[in-house]
Amino acid sequence: MKILLIGATGTLGTAVHQALAHRGHEILTVGRSGGDLRYDITDPAQVTALYDRTGRVDAVVSAVGHVPYKPVVELTPEDYLAGFRGKALCQIDLVRQGVRRVAERGSFTLITGVLAREPIPTASAAAVANGAVEAFVRTAAVEIAPQRVNAVSPTVFTESLAAYGDFFVGMAPVAVADAAQAYVRSVEGAQTGRIYTL
Amino acid sequence: MKILLIGATGTLGTAVHQALAHRGHEILTVGRSGGDLRYDITDPAQVTALYDRTGRVDAVVSAVGHVPYKPVVELTPEDYLAGFRGKALCQIDLVRQGVRRVAERGSFTLITGVLAREPIPTASAAAVANGAVEAFVRTAAVEIAPQRVNAVSPTVFTESLAAYGDFFVGMAPVAVADAAQAYVRSVEGAQTGRIYTL
Repeated sequence: MKILLIGATGTLGTAVHQALAHRGHEILTVGRSGGDLRYDITDPAQVTALYDRTGRVDAVVSAVGHVPYKPVVELTPEDYLAGFRGKALCQIDLVRQGVRRVAERGSFTLITGVLAREPIPTASAAAVANGAVEAFVRTAAVEIAPQRVNAVSPTVFTESLAAYGDFFVGMAPVAVADAAQAYVRSVEGAQTGRIYTL
Repeated sequence: MKILLIGATGTLGTAVHQALAHRGHEILTVGRSGGDLRYDITDPAQVTALYDRTGRVDAVVSAVGHVPYKPVVELTPEDYLAGFRGKALCQIDLVRQGVRRVAERGSFTLITGVLAREPIPTASAAAVANGAVEAFVRTAAVEIAPQRVNAVSPTVFTESLAAYGDFFVGMAPVAVADAAQAYVRSVEGAQTGRIYTL
């Protein structure tokens, strides 16, 4: 398959790239500052330009997301909006604009995360963005069939424990390679509207 | 208790008002165009002005929310933002600004809805807003203790079947009076971080 991978340079994106390449897919990597194609998907006009340039693809997979972390009483409405735009709205836009561009039975695989379901102090903006994406996936799935949309929702990565482990005390981490396999499952399988929790 | 009720004039707000009044609480109703106090809570400055005017309250309960309904391919980024502001961000702001203003063991009760978990065509912006609120509630609850925050998440109301029943075919409706009891449970009980699904 011809696959568009958004956010290919991060810990997760690199692993997803490897896993999909190992399966023999042709991968076009997209990033703001790295990858085959340089586009900022938080700008709807750049999403349009990206799809115009790539032509029809079989799958769009996303490993992007930027949200601010602060206590509830310090997060401003602008912070929540920044998180919503930086992780939810941009991924929703990949689907909205992609429905007319990807293959008839093409798929979208988005990223959310454990903070949608597990409360961690300072993570309410991340929770909001993740909860928004997961609810979107469930609803969009029934509208865009036979195209498909799923989300991968991992806990902290084993590879990121040094940086973020203190936020996830007592929670078992997941190897980023295992999270990448959820993308393979979403892309090559037949499921839709699923949240793959890891 | 002294309770601030936002969105008191709708089907749900009216029932919540009756249920809380029946329990002997003192209720201040707030709305954009109806109620004791006229404030638009989608404007953070008006939320500040509202809390400044009311002084300390024991509970804040919300029955507000405006979101656009259209197919995924017709909803624009501005539509998703309008839904996010109109149902999620405004309620988040009631908590954010309220933490410093409500009683030491005061509570917040927000409204979400079945669309967070059940996919219905044209409802993806509502799903996004509801999913955002529910994830916020789970995370904010652990930060603001001993203050509390819960959400009421009802399916279609029996009283609204004539208007909206076609969107919820085959799903059992809930009497609005039963949804109102979930608010009573949240306000008078000890639970936090709960999503009361009805």
